[in-house]
Amino acid sequence: MNIRFYNAKILTTNEDKSFSIVEGELWVKGDTICYIGDGSDLDKVYGEGENGVILWDREVDVRGNLLMPGFKNAHTHSGMTFLRSLADDLPLQEWLFEKVFPKEGQLLEEDLYWLTALANLEYLTSGITTQFDMYFFQYEVARACVDMGFRVVQTSGLNNFGGTVEELEEKYLKLNDYHALSSYILGFHAEYTTSRDLMEGVAGLVQKYKAPLYMHNSETKLETEECRQRYGLSPTQLFDSLGMYDYGGGGFHCVWFDEKDMEIYKKRGLSAVTNPGSNSKLASGIAPVDEFVKRGINVAIGTDGPASNNCLDMFKEMFLVSSLTKLKNMDAAVMDANEVLYMATTGGAKAMGLDCCDRLAVGKKADLIMIDLMQPNMQPVINLTKNLVYSGSKQNVKLTMINGQILYEDGNFKVDLDIPEIYQKANAIVARMK
Amino acid sequence: MNIRFYNAKILTTNEDKSFSIVEGELWVKGDTICYIGDGSDLDKVYGEGENGVILWDREVDVRGNLLMPGFKNAHTHSGMTFLRSLADDLPLQEWLFEKVFPKEGQLLEEDLYWLTALANLEYLTSGITTQFDMYFFQYEVARACVDMGFRVVQTSGLNNFGGTVEELEEKYLKLNDYHALSSYILGFHAEYTTSRDLMEGVAGLVQKYKAPLYMHNSETKLETEECRQRYGLSPTQLFDSLGMYDYGGGGFHCVWFDEKDMEIYKKRGLSAVTNPGSNSKLASGIAPVDEFVKRGINVAIGTDGPASNNCLDMFKEMFLVSSLTKLKNMDAAVMDANEVLYMATTGGAKAMGLDCCDRLAVGKKADLIMIDLMQPNMQPVINLTKNLVYSGSKQNVKLTMINGQILYEDGNFKVDLDIPEIYQKANAIVARMK
Repeated sequence: MNIRFYNAKILTTNEDKSFSIVEGELWVKGDTICYIGDGSDLDKVYGEGENGVILWDREVDVRGNLLMPGFKNAHTHSGMTFLRSLADDLPLQEWLFEKVFPKEGQLLEEDLYWLTALANLEYLTSGITTQFDMYFFQYEVARACVDMGFRVVQTSGLNNFGGTVEELEEKYLKLNDYHALSSYILGFHAEYTTSRDLMEGVAGLVQKYKAPLYMHNSETKLETEECRQRYGLSPTQLFDSLGMYDYGGGGFHCVWFDEKDMEIYKKRGLSAVTNPGSNSKLASGIAPVDEFVKRGINVAIGTDGPASNNCLDMFKEMFLVSSLTKLKNMDAAVMDANEVLYMATTGGAKAMGLDCCDRLAVGKKADLIMIDLMQPNMQPVINLTKNLVYSGSKQNVKLTMINGQILYEDGNFKVDLDIPEIYQKANAIVARMK
Repeated sequence: MNIRFYNAKILTTNEDKSFSIVEGELWVKGDTICYIGDGSDLDKVYGEGENGVILWDREVDVRGNLLMPGFKNAHTHSGMTFLRSLADDLPLQEWLFEKVFPKEGQLLEEDLYWLTALANLEYLTSGITTQFDMYFFQYEVARACVDMGFRVVQTSGLNNFGGTVEELEEKYLKLNDYHALSSYILGFHAEYTTSRDLMEGVAGLVQKYKAPLYMHNSETKLETEECRQRYGLSPTQLFDSLGMYDYGGGGFHCVWFDEKDMEIYKKRGLSAVTNPGSNSKLASGIAPVDEFVKRGINVAIGTDGPASNNCLDMFKEMFLVSSLTKLKNMDAAVMDANEVLYMATTGGAKAMGLDCCDRLAVGKKADLIMIDLMQPNMQPVINLTKNLVYSGSKQNVKLTMINGQILYEDGNFKVDLDIPEIYQKANAIVARMK
């Protein structure tokens, strides 16, 4: 499909992490952005058909609204949709061991197709165009995403209770070679669930493929304290000592970091993925996001899974990154909104190794969203990017496009799956479980 | 208008603050709810027209979605819409003295009509059916609300820099007698902006009318420390010592409360209005909401004004009340979602003295909203009220009704003002200012 957007404000991302607005047109040819500009330089632009003009399948009047890069959800467990609102307001240990784990043990492979599909629908309503997922039955996850046209990067939740290094390697090879929308990054669950032997096996793969690695890292205070007791090192220092961070990657949560941990993240070029909704709701703490930014560490934002958060809404997360960091420092001036918007878009793409769709620019994949500026929460227009971060909501998402395909528009899903069937399957999975 | 809602899930509020779901119908006759039930007891129900059946102006198939009480925004400065995104990410003092105050000094009376109208639109998108407003030019505020059909309770921002006790008394009398949608509660800005003389004048009105009183109370640590230096008392203790709390009321923010302050709030039956979005974004602190609840103090939730928050979204505030309280206590088990939902509805109505619309029940005013449960963030349906608090968003609001009038439905405003004109006026006010 070739699609022309006109009468648009287009949010472009500059090298210094700032944003600019281009007034004009954005053209999509197949899966790729082929033009951004005011339309006056048509003759210089790549085209086809008669007179070098592209034959449009559709022309969309954006009516002065905003086109911007889709949000990148840099940490989630999408399939946990079946646990949403099952066990909130409980102590963390009780929640995990008495509620989450026993239910997860009853999951069937095909469940993951429907549970992931449900999460994808929610991502589309929030303008999220990529998810960085860690969960079970990952071939089914990939299949659901590809069937819906959703871009997915997966990593492994390998730990003592499930998975082997051999399986991890197999998934790494197969899911990077499955479809243009599917990729895979090496990973394991966390230090506190994984033996040293298993971690050394994972480190072996990192070395073999010279590949980046992700895991849950320093989410809770208890976890870091126990790691120090076991190894005399923080989780980050342990991972680095095992050679796990030799080729990049990063960690999810990164709440309880010390100075040494941050030095390692800076030196190795790692990404810290912050999950403020989950970290506040599970009372895990507030990540030192401002300290990461100060040191030039790449920060990305994730929703975490719907069992802990419970929704998959990047607008909520953006507000929380800024407001929790201000609260942690008791200083309203820290953590500028534009920095947060960068994390939610380009920062996330960097963390996932997705240069292909990290911003709106010619040659990039067309992963973009349209924001309705004619809603009261976007008025008056004093500062558009601050409006987005502090005032934006899912209600403002008019259109979500992934890889050149419009998958959500004006409240309607345009995916190749039946929406009532997805809901029915998710509820049936819940009903089946003991 | 007589409106019949059928095929509905109806959220009713129990005396013990819990919620129930009634499956069936809700009828609105004029401005009042006249029936809630499964429709099988028609013959016993109040009716008119032939055979005792109401002549419907409209019958709405709710299609299994949820009808619930509208949210009560228990603290705001609606007219501050003109400051949205003007001056974020600044230290509090610089924000207030260099940005907010100089701009506010340039406001004209008629500006408040349009700026309030803009906020009202945003409230409607968030399912907010009443605002408790403190700002300037309050006759214009009332006029805007009444013209739009929006329910408003106002209180005064009287302080050393503007207003007199006489003016306060006049507004109290006139705006309580202006229209069924308008009411007025005595108030002043805050201890730190108001002389003792002026406070004693306000206390005189409290005594004269045996009336409740509100003000900003203990929002920042600095404010409470300075009050203790001036008077040897916390703000709450000072207000109580002046007889200000003899007839109820309460305070906005209530972040820096000590045990004595809470005892006073309990003893006097006062309401603590919490504003977590503003308190986090301005780095003011986290209110001890769980301590209020433990002591049986009524808690309500407010968005605060759009200069500080910046959006007017009760879903965001509900999530924050729960998650910030969990974080403050480092305990995921405190502050149950149902408690928060009660604050956002009945708790708010109590704070504003609005028994007339504090829940969905026969004889109550029809201030209600319809929540779209067929969105992915509301699926699967394991716990409907937790879904609302932790996962809900403005995107789920399908319909907002105030006083029996549908003012917002399926993304369209049904008010007697022109929406583009409201936006144009708000932007013109911003452009006019130096």
